[in-house]
Amino acid sequence: MKVTLSALDTSEAFFKPLVVLELARDVKEETRKWLEKKINDKKKNGGAQLLIRPLIEKCEEQTLESQNLYLVGASTIRLLLGAESVGLVKECNDSTMRAFTYETRQNFKGFSNGNDDFLTVAECQFIIKHELENLRARDEKMIPGYPQAKLYPGKSILRRLLTSGLVTQIFPLHDNEALKKLESTWYNRFKLKYQPLDNIRMYFGETITLYFGFLEYFTFALIPMALIGLPYYVFDWEDYDKYVIFASFNLIWSTVILEVWKRGCALMTYRWGTLLMKRQFEEPRPGFHGVLGINPITGREEPLYSSFKRQLRIYLISLPFVCLCLYFSLYVMMIYFDLETWAQEVHRESDFPELTNILLFVPSIIYAIVIEIMNRLYRFAAEFLTSWENHRLESAYQNHLVLKVLVFNFLNCFASLFYIAFVMRDMKLLRQSLATLLITSQILNQIVETLLPYWLQRKCGLRVKKKVQGLKADVDVTLYEQVMLEREKGTYLGTFDDYLELFLQFGYVSLFSCVYPLAAAFAVLNNFTEINSDALKMCKVFKRPFAEPSASIGVWQLAFETMSVIAVVTNCALIGMSPQLNAVFPDSKTDLILMVVAVEHALLALKFVLAFVIPDKPQEIQIKLAKLEFESLEALKQQAGIDARNVDTSSSFQGTPKQNAAESAVASGSGATSTSRTRGPWKMR
Amino acid sequence: MKVTLSALDTSEAFFKPLVVLELARDVKEETRKWLEKKINDKKKNGGAQLLIRPLIEKCEEQTLESQNLYLVGASTIRLLLGAESVGLVKECNDSTMRAFTYETRQNFKGFSNGNDDFLTVAECQFIIKHELENLRARDEKMIPGYPQAKLYPGKSILRRLLTSGLVTQIFPLHDNEALKKLESTWYNRFKLKYQPLDNIRMYFGETITLYFGFLEYFTFALIPMALIGLPYYVFDWEDYDKYVIFASFNLIWSTVILEVWKRGCALMTYRWGTLLMKRQFEEPRPGFHGVLGINPITGREEPLYSSFKRQLRIYLISLPFVCLCLYFSLYVMMIYFDLETWAQEVHRESDFPELTNILLFVPSIIYAIVIEIMNRLYRFAAEFLTSWENHRLESAYQNHLVLKVLVFNFLNCFASLFYIAFVMRDMKLLRQSLATLLITSQILNQIVETLLPYWLQRKCGLRVKKKVQGLKADVDVTLYEQVMLEREKGTYLGTFDDYLELFLQFGYVSLFSCVYPLAAAFAVLNNFTEINSDALKMCKVFKRPFAEPSASIGVWQLAFETMSVIAVVTNCALIGMSPQLNAVFPDSKTDLILMVVAVEHALLALKFVLAFVIPDKPQEIQIKLAKLEFESLEALKQQAGIDARNVDTSSSFQGTPKQNAAESAVASGSGATSTSRTRGPWKMR
Repeated sequence: MKVTLSALDTSEAFFKPLVVLELARDVKEETRKWLEKKINDKKKNGGAQLLIRPLIEKCEEQTLESQNLYLVGASTIRLLLGAESVGLVKECNDSTMRAFTYETRQNFKGFSNGNDDFLTVAECQFIIKHELENLRARDEKMIPGYPQAKLYPGKSILRRLLTSGLVTQIFPLHDNEALKKLESTWYNRFKLKYQPLDNIRMYFGETITLYFGFLEYFTFALIPMALIGLPYYVFDWEDYDKYVIFASFNLIWSTVILEVWKRGCALMTYRWGTLLMKRQFEEPRPGFHGVLGINPITGREEPLYSSFKRQLRIYLISLPFVCLCLYFSLYVMMIYFDLETWAQEVHRESDFPELTNILLFVPSIIYAIVIEIMNRLYRFAAEFLTSWENHRLESAYQNHLVLKVLVFNFLNCFASLFYIAFVMRDMKLLRQSLATLLITSQILNQIVETLLPYWLQRKCGLRVKKKVQGLKADVDVTLYEQVMLEREKGTYLGTFDDYLELFLQFGYVSLFSCVYPLAAAFAVLNNFTEINSDALKMCKVFKRPFAEPSASIGVWQLAFETMSVIAVVTNCALIGMSPQLNAVFPDSKTDLILMVVAVEHALLALKFVLAFVIPDKPQEIQIKLAKLEFESLEALKQQAGIDARNVDTSSSFQGTPKQNAAESAVASGSGATSTSRTRGPWKMR
Repeated sequence: MKVTLSALDTSEAFFKPLVVLELARDVKEETRKWLEKKINDKKKNGGAQLLIRPLIEKCEEQTLESQNLYLVGASTIRLLLGAESVGLVKECNDSTMRAFTYETRQNFKGFSNGNDDFLTVAECQFIIKHELENLRARDEKMIPGYPQAKLYPGKSILRRLLTSGLVTQIFPLHDNEALKKLESTWYNRFKLKYQPLDNIRMYFGETITLYFGFLEYFTFALIPMALIGLPYYVFDWEDYDKYVIFASFNLIWSTVILEVWKRGCALMTYRWGTLLMKRQFEEPRPGFHGVLGINPITGREEPLYSSFKRQLRIYLISLPFVCLCLYFSLYVMMIYFDLETWAQEVHRESDFPELTNILLFVPSIIYAIVIEIMNRLYRFAAEFLTSWENHRLESAYQNHLVLKVLVFNFLNCFASLFYIAFVMRDMKLLRQSLATLLITSQILNQIVETLLPYWLQRKCGLRVKKKVQGLKADVDVTLYEQVMLEREKGTYLGTFDDYLELFLQFGYVSLFSCVYPLAAAFAVLNNFTEINSDALKMCKVFKRPFAEPSASIGVWQLAFETMSVIAVVTNCALIGMSPQLNAVFPDSKTDLILMVVAVEHALLALKFVLAFVIPDKPQEIQIKLAKLEFESLEALKQQAGIDARNVDTSSSFQGTPKQNAAESAVASGSGATSTSRTRGPWKMR
């Protein structure tokens, strides 16, 4: 009844290479053969049923360093079956979104036999990655030839190969033609235009596209803030009432834009099908390990790990560790401020002010270096801890990692500003350090993140080209050159750092907005170039990343919302501390504070009411989702109906006469009841 | 394929009467006949296909006042089909919970042919009510005999009959035997025992049972608070640090108990099947009107009303009206305080203190009366407005009504306490009025709510009994007497007032807990008797209410959570104002306030983190729900597969050879792929 992989011929003589697999130089021949067989073998034999061939055929092997590169692909049918197992959601001919199945392929928009465009290249690469990662050991005890690389039933073979260093990397190939087309509509444009998000998604997948969509949306949403902030700078407004108005607008605005983004995001991801993709039925993430057992939800055999144990690890080890790190970070900050005052004192009492003038910069330089080191060390520890927590799903892993890193980075970046604002109460210094931090971090980021790697990569590219030119002509030079070029490129480590940058920018703009209204304008300027430099980075600098489906920006939504709540508190406190406002209440500081606290509570209440009142999904999407749910429930009822009928037919002899009458009514009745419309096939019989 | 009502014989000579329908005295014969026919008629003719007979046969009619009473029932098959159309969820033999369908009836636990116990009486009555309410006009332009009672396609006939006064009431009959059994395990017990919630649910339905469950849970949850509060009273502790500890414990505790209730509630309602009942596929509520159209979710024809219009009504009319009422309520409170000071002044300056002593009570008496009047008027207006907002679902209607009434009642009850606490800053007066309000309201409530109606109802019962004894003997006297008795009883207007009472009690306990720690103890004492008196009320005083399925306490959960947030703010403010704490900071009031605000923010943050960290549903239930969703999605895939196959068979001639090969693989393939297990019937063929 079902299409099985074993019954299909998924081998082809020639195939389009989609993914490159690089083995270590000294991998034994035995292991190579075993891996090739594993990847090529049929599903029923425990293989991945994919196509694989070396980049260079045997004969030329000795002359080149590329003997360890393999190309992986798959037949069209195999890819379609993979799309089903991944749970891809596509648009049907009746313009509903449904989970793709091979059996129903004719129902889907854009599908026709022999048409290879139905799945985008990014989707195909995602499917191959998924299949490779879920190539699991059956009864192998180790990787052949490497007794120390142990395997056990259910262990992902690729993961073990990667951890034991036998596979050095795996990456998808660029599609140069499509990439050029994309580049021409994406960046390299001097006029302002929306990004071609749908095309980006076809090439890079949903996760990356959502980042670019959010970056663009956020930039446009900042424009009103920037415009309102400009006159404060131009006319040097310092009246507290104007600041109050500015801050209030900012707070309401930041709530509204985050809510509206949620709605826009739902609209987009519904169209892309990822809103409907079922995360909980995902296969466990590659790093997940546990005892093989039956998943209580799907009834399939897969590794299981007690969620109680995971909770214990999170709350007893990870949480205390994070708290300790936070404490340490604050401690370092206090040392920095002590050093600062010490340096200033030395400078003031010094007999050689020219010499000690340099000393004034030493504490901040040391602090900046220490912060950078701490961030790196912490990031490493956070990744280790989150991996050790053994989350079943990639999304859960990401969420926990993001949460850990976010809290630490937030404190590291803003703690000194908070200290200046609320302990030292030096608004001038606050404005100055805010401006310095914002502008320098933006400029540095753009250089370090994009321009530097781009330059390095170009140099390296020329070297590779030179080498390739020295080749014999009977190899597929174009493909060979492409693989060798991309192999040398850096790996894009996910949207994490890009979002983090945006998050910290949002912090600079919103936390102290009433002290430095120009921040939004700088952020807008930066983001317009950021879009272009990030696009350049994606297209030119890095290896092509694997597409990852996702339905929203996930934990970042929560992070931005939390930031906007904190912003309410800090802005109210700053306004309350402003000398202008203090001049209005010269006698009673208590009344002032009480008033500020009251306004703060009112703003917070308003924020929550707004978030509650604005629905997360547009009505249109709500209806579509409800419709799908309704249909799937009806289908379940129908199917249960057949189960029952099969039982009934075999046991109808025992029924009472009255019951049999009802039975025959069941068999002969036609037309719809008031309850449920009968659907297609059931009507036909 | 489907069982249709038209094909089934759902008429029976004798039936168990379930619901009583009372017409007005002077209803025309023509209208009676039409209504009887409508209720009895087959579905395809636009009827409800229920059974109906007059309580007393024609011949005896003249001698009795009961000529307008009708008994409504239904055949077993009709009830089962009704259960399907209502969307009842029941436990299957494999102990999963599934939506009941008539076709699959054999799969369900406790179902066997000729077994009438499968549906509880409460469920049967709910089904009959649902069917009667959804008896809609087709092409009738008016109710026969009453041209002023207009009908239009899709209008609920019962609703029109009720609004035009032709049907005076409709209520389900008590089941005296079951009731006695229930009573013996429920109240009348002097030893402490849990309530028999499952039995209550069988008799009164989920909504009422959830109220009793929540009442019981809340009472037990208050015990720790009460125990900790007691020593404060006994030893007269007044140290601020002890108060801080007490208040902090209360705040964390109130957050935790509300979260834990959510989990317990999910466990219960999963077992009852209501957690899985799909609210959005509900039929529209009886009062809902609109233009007939196709529901975009279900594809069924039903009245539709633009949600944009509804939003306009809510935000442009209802919201301003509520705000105006709130303002008016505050205004009245201010007048009361003015009156109060005026009375005290008169008393102080009076020459006849005995006379003016009475005058001191006049303002509070007037205020109490005015509050009561305002509450009544507002309740009336709120019901009218919410009905006018034309919500599609009963639950949406309830939510909006509750929200409206809640805000107003909260202000009415607590505004004066807030005024005393934060404007007059008279803690002694606050404690005094808090105690007075709490205790008197509890005592009054118990008397007015239960004992008084119970006494009145007993008197009335004796009168009815007397009358019945004067009857001829050939009528079914027991049934007749029962109907006549219950007809006279008051109608239970829903759990609204009971929850409101509990909500206000929670307010008294939590809002000012650090001023009056004894409040929790009083609340516990009250609630133990409240459980019994409410049970008495349900069983003895009122007509049996219709069972209403519900999955949670709905908007009340939000209301209680909001109250506990407000409680954090008020308690922190009260502690900050305490003279003990002020004595610690004699010089700097500013530092004190800042510290209190900081603590408050920390507590609020902790609350939100707690609410975020504790999952709303126990893991067990999460897995079961995910499993059901997974299965229904698989079923949808399967069904779509059949659709596709039917199309394929008819068009396979055009396919390419390769495609045909795949096709035949589809037809001949057996065994499960790695992706999806094939389920029952598909395997069999």
